Amino acid sequence: MTDQPGHPLDTFFSPDSIALVGASRDLEKIPGRLLSMLRKNEFPGRIYPINPNYGEIDGLKCHASIADVGQPIDLAIVMIPARGVLGALEQCAAGGVKNAVVISSGFAEEGGDSAAMQDAMTALAKQTRMRVSGPNAEGFYSEVQRVAATFSPTVDVKPGEPRLIATKRRIGIVAQSGGIGFAIYHRARALGIALSYVVSAGNECDLGAGEFFEYMVQDAATDVILLFIEGIRDVDKFLAAARRAAEIGKPVIVTKVGRSGAGERAAASHTASMAGWSAAYDAVFAKYGFIISNDLDEAVTIAAVLTSNPLPGGDRVAVLTVSGGAGIWGADAVSMQGLQVPELSAPIQAEIGKLLPSYGATRNPIDVTAQGVHSGGLQRSIDLLDSSDEVDAILVVLSLSSDTRMPFKRTELKPVISAQHKPIVFYSYTLPSQFARNELAASGVVVLSGLTHVGVALRQMVRRAKFRLAPPADAAPSMPRQFAARLGSAVLSEADSKALLRDAGIELPGEVLVTEKSGLDAAIACVGFPLAMKIQSRDIPHKSEVGGVRLGIATKGEVFLAFEALLENARRRRPDADIQGVLVTPMAKKGVEIIIGTLMDKTFGPLIMVGLGGITTELFEDVIYRPAPVGAVEAAAMLAELRAAPLLNGFRGAAKADVAALAQLIAQLSMLASACRDHISEIEINPVLVHPEGRGVTIVDALVVGKKD
Amino acid sequence: MTDQPGHPLDTFFSPDSIALVGASRDLEKIPGRLLSMLRKNEFPGRIYPINPNYGEIDGLKCHASIADVGQPIDLAIVMIPARGVLGALEQCAAGGVKNAVVISSGFAEEGGDSAAMQDAMTALAKQTRMRVSGPNAEGFYSEVQRVAATFSPTVDVKPGEPRLIATKRRIGIVAQSGGIGFAIYHRARALGIALSYVVSAGNECDLGAGEFFEYMVQDAATDVILLFIEGIRDVDKFLAAARRAAEIGKPVIVTKVGRSGAGERAAASHTASMAGWSAAYDAVFAKYGFIISNDLDEAVTIAAVLTSNPLPGGDRVAVLTVSGGAGIWGADAVSMQGLQVPELSAPIQAEIGKLLPSYGATRNPIDVTAQGVHSGGLQRSIDLLDSSDEVDAILVVLSLSSDTRMPFKRTELKPVISAQHKPIVFYSYTLPSQFARNELAASGVVVLSGLTHVGVALRQMVRRAKFRLAPPADAAPSMPRQFAARLGSAVLSEADSKALLRDAGIELPGEVLVTEKSGLDAAIACVGFPLAMKIQSRDIPHKSEVGGVRLGIATKGEVFLAFEALLENARRRRPDADIQGVLVTPMAKKGVEIIIGTLMDKTFGPLIMVGLGGITTELFEDVIYRPAPVGAVEAAAMLAELRAAPLLNGFRGAAKADVAALAQLIAQLSMLASACRDHISEIEINPVLVHPEGRGVTIVDALVVGKKD
Repeated sequence: MTDQPGHPLDTFFSPDSIALVGASRDLEKIPGRLLSMLRKNEFPGRIYPINPNYGEIDGLKCHASIADVGQPIDLAIVMIPARGVLGALEQCAAGGVKNAVVISSGFAEEGGDSAAMQDAMTALAKQTRMRVSGPNAEGFYSEVQRVAATFSPTVDVKPGEPRLIATKRRIGIVAQSGGIGFAIYHRARALGIALSYVVSAGNECDLGAGEFFEYMVQDAATDVILLFIEGIRDVDKFLAAARRAAEIGKPVIVTKVGRSGAGERAAASHTASMAGWSAAYDAVFAKYGFIISNDLDEAVTIAAVLTSNPLPGGDRVAVLTVSGGAGIWGADAVSMQGLQVPELSAPIQAEIGKLLPSYGATRNPIDVTAQGVHSGGLQRSIDLLDSSDEVDAILVVLSLSSDTRMPFKRTELKPVISAQHKPIVFYSYTLPSQFARNELAASGVVVLSGLTHVGVALRQMVRRAKFRLAPPADAAPSMPRQFAARLGSAVLSEADSKALLRDAGIELPGEVLVTEKSGLDAAIACVGFPLAMKIQSRDIPHKSEVGGVRLGIATKGEVFLAFEALLENARRRRPDADIQGVLVTPMAKKGVEIIIGTLMDKTFGPLIMVGLGGITTELFEDVIYRPAPVGAVEAAAMLAELRAAPLLNGFRGAAKADVAALAQLIAQLSMLASACRDHISEIEINPVLVHPEGRGVTIVDALVVGKKD
Repeated sequence: MTDQPGHPLDTFFSPDSIALVGASRDLEKIPGRLLSMLRKNEFPGRIYPINPNYGEIDGLKCHASIADVGQPIDLAIVMIPARGVLGALEQCAAGGVKNAVVISSGFAEEGGDSAAMQDAMTALAKQTRMRVSGPNAEGFYSEVQRVAATFSPTVDVKPGEPRLIATKRRIGIVAQSGGIGFAIYHRARALGIALSYVVSAGNECDLGAGEFFEYMVQDAATDVILLFIEGIRDVDKFLAAARRAAEIGKPVIVTKVGRSGAGERAAASHTASMAGWSAAYDAVFAKYGFIISNDLDEAVTIAAVLTSNPLPGGDRVAVLTVSGGAGIWGADAVSMQGLQVPELSAPIQAEIGKLLPSYGATRNPIDVTAQGVHSGGLQRSIDLLDSSDEVDAILVVLSLSSDTRMPFKRTELKPVISAQHKPIVFYSYTLPSQFARNELAASGVVVLSGLTHVGVALRQMVRRAKFRLAPPADAAPSMPRQFAARLGSAVLSEADSKALLRDAGIELPGEVLVTEKSGLDAAIACVGFPLAMKIQSRDIPHKSEVGGVRLGIATKGEVFLAFEALLENARRRRPDADIQGVLVTPMAKKGVEIIIGTLMDKTFGPLIMVGLGGITTELFEDVIYRPAPVGAVEAAAMLAELRAAPLLNGFRGAAKADVAALAQLIAQLSMLASACRDHISEIEINPVLVHPEGRGVTIVDALVVGKKD
């Protein structure tokens, strides 16, 4: 039982009683295996097999129907052919069953009539308030309450097989794919990571991944959450849980698949989910400080480090080894993740030197040597570095392949680990033996065997320690009334786009839209020289392509000639276009060229994007997204994440750019996109020029696209 | 025995007789373990223990000295304290021993007198032609000839333990660090990869990693080579072997450590090697088509795929799975490596569809489903895709954790694999069981368990299949005599640098160095308007910083004013500078801005570098190196590797750039740097502007730095 009484899903994850709808004696088939699985894993509650064809199964009375049980039932596990499922669920609901897991397949993933059956299940759940997980699910497993409500072979324990447990803290796993959810568990278990729950969401007719995630966030038995996502359906629940996890500091490691064209194609049909646009998912993950991992072993390695270590206070790592070559590799692996492996000070080197033979190395990496191990120098060096203020984490690089020998005395290592002040991570370059895993688990140590993954895990620990949930954006202004008039369903001209932005309170240069030659003198008077002139038409989004732009005009004569030429070019090259006029605008002062955009994601709604302008953005894909709206603090954090960020911070002796003004503009645009999500599908400011600190920004061009109905 | 009789190191790797210098009965210590290791691994030759303190050891007569043996000895393994080693080697040489491995530590890695002992060993080897490996080595192991000349616990086989062998082809491992060399073997063995030799080079007093590498390249029993390098000492042997490997198409997987500051710091002292500049190593590796891997499991995964599969004919991958979620992940992992996962054609989908139930997926990824497995659809789908021309490789994504069940019948899978036309790679998302490894090994299949590593391995297979060794550069011209006069040890001015390049036959714009005002008219006549003017001084390498550059000058009056101003600025801001004059040069036409450079690497000599110019190169570190000289073909290949390459190939509708002219310039510079390696330490062309195809390139600025003595 969790510490928080009364969560509606407690009876799902920790049922006192389970009905097995479709129970069987045939252990070769899934319905037969479920009962044996529950019993092998020592489910402590009551089990009611339901099958009119049997009187008893394996010593338990078998009931003809749910109604026949006559006792409260917390959870029904349904594993009968698809066409019988809806009827069975109706009986469950009628019998007061609180929750059901539907293992059976053949619903939305097949489409047609099968999908309709699933819709009926959704309706039933809504109407009766019985919660239904699945169909097409692999069930769940609770290591806390010993509930194996699944047929997954990964929880098919052998009698008497001891469970390796190295971590104090527990992971919880939510996966839409049961195969992957239980594979994560399988790999985590092999490392000795403790588990609260692993749950597969399947087709999510009622209970979805977002709601399971929410359960794990509030669950006191779950310390670190691993998510495997194809596409989120219950978006609001997911977002609320994500925010809550960030607020209470519970780490979330997430894998989102369907990132590639082929993956997306498959995800769209598999479990009938929408893969969605991965950049939008990543934007949400980044906002809430999720740790993104696209590799199973990497994700599990990060989980292992998180569940067995405190967070580091900084990014300085000591690498301790017994093999010179492996130590160098360890130092490289950590450095390549952007962490520091600082040379230790003379005093601490002298201290460590006392523990090592003359040919040991003390600078960092620290080579304890085989003899140093023999004399206990390894754990004493660890202890010394753990209390030093020169490093923030310790990576121990060893060979732990022996079935009989250990480089530590258990009695000496355990107190060091129990008292640890910083991450102490153990990596074996040879494949670790089970003996070594068991020995180190007794001291609370997980043995890791992928060096790159270890480097990534340390980097993620450092990032995690620094993560702060951004303060919310100011309340978004409601959309001014004239917006709807300016919009429509079309692409707006630059002049209209800019007018709309001005209405929203965004500062723009003084510009004049000139429709007749007679207006040019006034425009010159207002704008001044040098100026730029651009043809304006909703039908011509790419003005330069029709010879519709003139820059750096410095005389009145040129202005008049340009006006004629621009109109003539447009008429000749786009005779169909509806011409608004010519925009006369001052030439912008120099600045760093930035692109800002907003767009609508089908899953998460409005997003805000920023990138370095010019060819760089496109060529190096150096753009950052966040769900809109963002405040100025979050906008500044986006800018800091750009690889091109140094360009804003005084690159090669240039003046620092006005990042504050740029962040303010990003925040304003994100709030506009958020407030007008029903009317605006896209805004693009390309470029905005960022001037030196204190001198603001200049929006050079802007494009607003109304929402298509 | 290898197929090539007569290689000098055959008696090292395949000795008929081994003397154990310092043999012991104490199995707790290394000298005692060596004899038992040789015997457990069933060394078929004669063993002569040498130790004056014993009459016999473990049933073998123990000799007092080498001289006492009275029989030819191919290999002596020396494992006595450091101070006795030189004497023992002298006795070995006197006794006609052909090769020695010195296990003992305490030589160059300690410095001082210990290093001097190692120098004496080097001298002895040179003088007597007895080949000596080590000291501070972990020896070697030959799986071909069953020679365990090492104390590594990883070859300490348990009696009767069967060796899992899944691959037809064998890997050979050369490592400077014994710990890592045998760790690679340990991990490869667990996967069922066959081995020829693993050898640790240690301090390399005589035999070095380059020479061991050369042995493996010519060795018929070695099909794929894994190198673990801290720093190469026998560079010429290494380079010759690298070229040979590329010529005969033997794949080389290389890990180079000491890449980070901390790693380099440690590598510099460990085994007393020089870590060197990693970019130079990577340039050499790239030239010869080495596969670079910085992760142990990744390297071993690549080796597994290479030793059990043919090379692919293209980059199109089919992903076959039994779990929807895992299949999506598989498709993502492959796509993220830049490979294609194409949707299959309707006819082949129809063919596969016949093998699957209705809810299976056939588009790619292909979800065979559990039922499809049951009916044999998995191996039949593999067979079908193997003969299809729609894909070039097959990734099979399974759960292979069961200790009793397999998704294949062995009799059905084996013929499919035996007849394979393309790579067929097996990945298990759950941890594979030993049962599954054994079962699949019988069909020649390695079970892999790291999905990202599998994706990388497939990408490397595709790259490997495409790799062609670049044709050699034209013979480098010898250095013209006037070079030495132009050089000296200083940094050259732009004018002198350009003059030197002109002497070397490199085309440059017509420019005039003006020393007196009176020369300006002639310069204008020669150069024409618009022109640029730049102050010239060896003491002012950064001209703009002293106000020493004027661009876009269009009138005679401006030229005269600029001349005065440039000289005045230089005199005022760098009064100490020796001023040569002002360079008058035509304004260059527009083009893509590229930087080219040459530099001297302490290990490999002259290197040529190319990158996109401007801020991009520095910010995104988008530069490519190769050892100089390169021919134009190799130079063009360098350009194609730039991430910014699209800018040269008609980005966003721009004209294609004159890549041929640029490649020609790169080749010329590389030949110059190569020919003048004793005189020039650095050339920088920054920028060169690349004009549209057929219009050549313009060198805007150039800097030559003479070699410091």
